[in-house]
Amino acid sequence: MSKLRVNAFSLSLDGYGAGPDQDLQNPLGVGGPAVHKWAFSTRTFRKMFGEEGGATTGADEDFAARSFENVGAWILGRNMFGPIRGEWPDDSWKGWWGDNPPYHVPVFVLTHHERAPITMEGGTTFYFVTDGIHSALEQAKAAAGGKDVRVGGGVATIRQYLQERLIDEMHLAISPVLLGRGESLFSGLDMLKLGYQCTEQVATALATHVAIKRA
Amino acid sequence: MSKLRVNAFSLSLDGYGAGPDQDLQNPLGVGGPAVHKWAFSTRTFRKMFGEEGGATTGADEDFAARSFENVGAWILGRNMFGPIRGEWPDDSWKGWWGDNPPYHVPVFVLTHHERAPITMEGGTTFYFVTDGIHSALEQAKAAAGGKDVRVGGGVATIRQYLQERLIDEMHLAISPVLLGRGESLFSGLDMLKLGYQCTEQVATALATHVAIKRA
Repeated sequence: MSKLRVNAFSLSLDGYGAGPDQDLQNPLGVGGPAVHKWAFSTRTFRKMFGEEGGATTGADEDFAARSFENVGAWILGRNMFGPIRGEWPDDSWKGWWGDNPPYHVPVFVLTHHERAPITMEGGTTFYFVTDGIHSALEQAKAAAGGKDVRVGGGVATIRQYLQERLIDEMHLAISPVLLGRGESLFSGLDMLKLGYQCTEQVATALATHVAIKRA
Repeated sequence: MSKLRVNAFSLSLDGYGAGPDQDLQNPLGVGGPAVHKWAFSTRTFRKMFGEEGGATTGADEDFAARSFENVGAWILGRNMFGPIRGEWPDDSWKGWWGDNPPYHVPVFVLTHHERAPITMEGGTTFYFVTDGIHSALEQAKAAAGGKDVRVGGGVATIRQYLQERLIDEMHLAISPVLLGRGESLFSGLDMLKLGYQCTEQVATALATHVAIKRA
């Protein structure tokens, strides 16, 4: 059955998915990139951004590679698509990733801003969903053709789907970095009551990878 | 120089130092013991509670053994000494640990309840400090005779010392367990602004051990 998944989602030791003061210069927030260091070390992610090299084995690469397997559609919060805290400047904005985004499948962007779909190179089409997370999930499942739907983030979007118990499994990577402030993934969210438990833990020098599943 | 340390302090994945609904039956809170599974696996902690066996090598045992090295005095929050959320029933209460507590040095208990010191077997003396965390630290440093002072917890006590930038180093053990609710160590505490950073990460199957130091 098609699952709703979160993969390769990086958190700081103090539980933040991005650093404070996100803006165009710092889309991951101040200090944010350090939280993603494990991902930048892998061949899978380096290749995604057109770079050479990177680890081809080990748990970091395993989790990176698994994160792209069997994904038929994505759901993104608006900040994942456009400049932070203001949707996007105008409709010439086509996301952070250039003409050939690393999705290659339909991507459903949660927003309050109506907009026609944009077909990009390489198989990515951005659809803009203004009627909420349930509608986005329904559309994404239909588009995924039996494959899984992956929620890319950010924290607020993942929290909304967790709160509704709609996420089937999550892979988080906890990095040995303190961010101090930011968006907390777990704060005020009773994961146990929502039926989630940790089912796997594998650590590398750069991150502790954990799998969390809904019972 | 004598340091103020936190060692072998266990946290859940979602950042809680103890589970919810702590009481006499559940001093670690509901679900709390699972967070300490790594410690119960070590020879050092098993021996402390009069049990045989346990790992004698590996990072779990290393961090457990290091946690007791060069400790000249302890500071405990009131819940670490007596029944949760009500100080203790009466002055016949001598802590959770029986006649020979596993401290073997002076222990300073933060409380609002004045009480004469209690000398226990094996070198532990409990002193009750009613005039705040700075007074407790001063008394503990004087009693430690040049060795370090270890803050045993709980979360609220550690947070108070962190907020005042008085803790020099912390060893946390993050367990692959969700507690859902409880006392959050980091929530609302800007560790970066307070000058702390993560300097070490070593993981086992049971926990990710991290060292955090003040710059």
